[in-house]
Amino acid sequence: MSDELDPSAKKLALRAINYGLHVLTATDGKEYGAGGVNWITQASFEPPLVVAAVKADSGSAAIIASTEAFAVNVLGADQLDIGKAFFRSTTMEDGELNGHPFEAGPVTGSPLLTETPYWFECRVTDTVARGDHTIFVGQVVSAGVRDEGSAPLLLRDTGMNYGG
Amino acid sequence: MSDELDPSAKKLALRAINYGLHVLTATDGKEYGAGGVNWITQASFEPPLVVAAVKADSGSAAIIASTEAFAVNVLGADQLDIGKAFFRSTTMEDGELNGHPFEAGPVTGSPLLTETPYWFECRVTDTVARGDHTIFVGQVVSAGVRDEGSAPLLLRDTGMNYGG
Repeated sequence: MSDELDPSAKKLALRAINYGLHVLTATDGKEYGAGGVNWITQASFEPPLVVAAVKADSGSAAIIASTEAFAVNVLGADQLDIGKAFFRSTTMEDGELNGHPFEAGPVTGSPLLTETPYWFECRVTDTVARGDHTIFVGQVVSAGVRDEGSAPLLLRDTGMNYGG
Repeated sequence: MSDELDPSAKKLALRAINYGLHVLTATDGKEYGAGGVNWITQASFEPPLVVAAVKADSGSAAIIASTEAFAVNVLGADQLDIGKAFFRSTTMEDGELNGHPFEAGPVTGSPLLTETPYWFECRVTDTVARGDHTIFVGQVVSAGVRDEGSAPLLLRDTGMNYGG
């Protein structure tokens, strides 16, 4: 075995991690950031912590850095179309975010998409800015279920991937 | 909507995050730590970073804190039995880790299970010790594929979960 990092093996091994797909949102009350994000994991039960890695040069990362808050909207298995709407730049028109309705999260005000089955809001406790994505550690301060029993979308099932 | 954190909604929303199942391993050359871990995500392409949340009071977390290295072995879809073997205390007998063969990782020496389809080794770059699991950020320094095309195990498919 080589002690070099083989780019091809790295890609395949990292793409073997399973992910869902989520729309991560943030706002400072003036600007909005919203993007499809799969690099998310829980990281503690008590306190309830999650980790989200957000493109470092994105509008969302800039807003989160200033507000220290974000929300995660978990897409259901049949909601890839919603996810795809958030692979492009954030728009706010006619009170909709990238064409989708939302309401303000009860604790942080972060946008909650009203069509997705699960959501949670977080307050940032720690930030690691080391790579091309900023790692935000967030404490879950509010959560909700709009469609209990809905199966979350599995990124692998879409034929897409983001990783490697 | 209430501005309280509803424990039931929190549980359901956090369990909606999709995960694989992995055996995370570490050694200081004398003691070995190995455990089934699902709270793992990539967190940067360049440098290639991953985040793993490891039970703070575990032997593995203690070893990683001292060696600043670990490996992740990604289980294949038909390898739940291997995962279950690492839900108990770590044993090293007859040159096997919890009854499974391994070899030393080429860069960090962390144990690599020879039966699993994908693996990567990491050097810890950052640590966040805030909750009941320690968040290790690791740079991928070596990776391998033993069974290309093997589908990784999806935790949801096992009927088990760890989160909420």
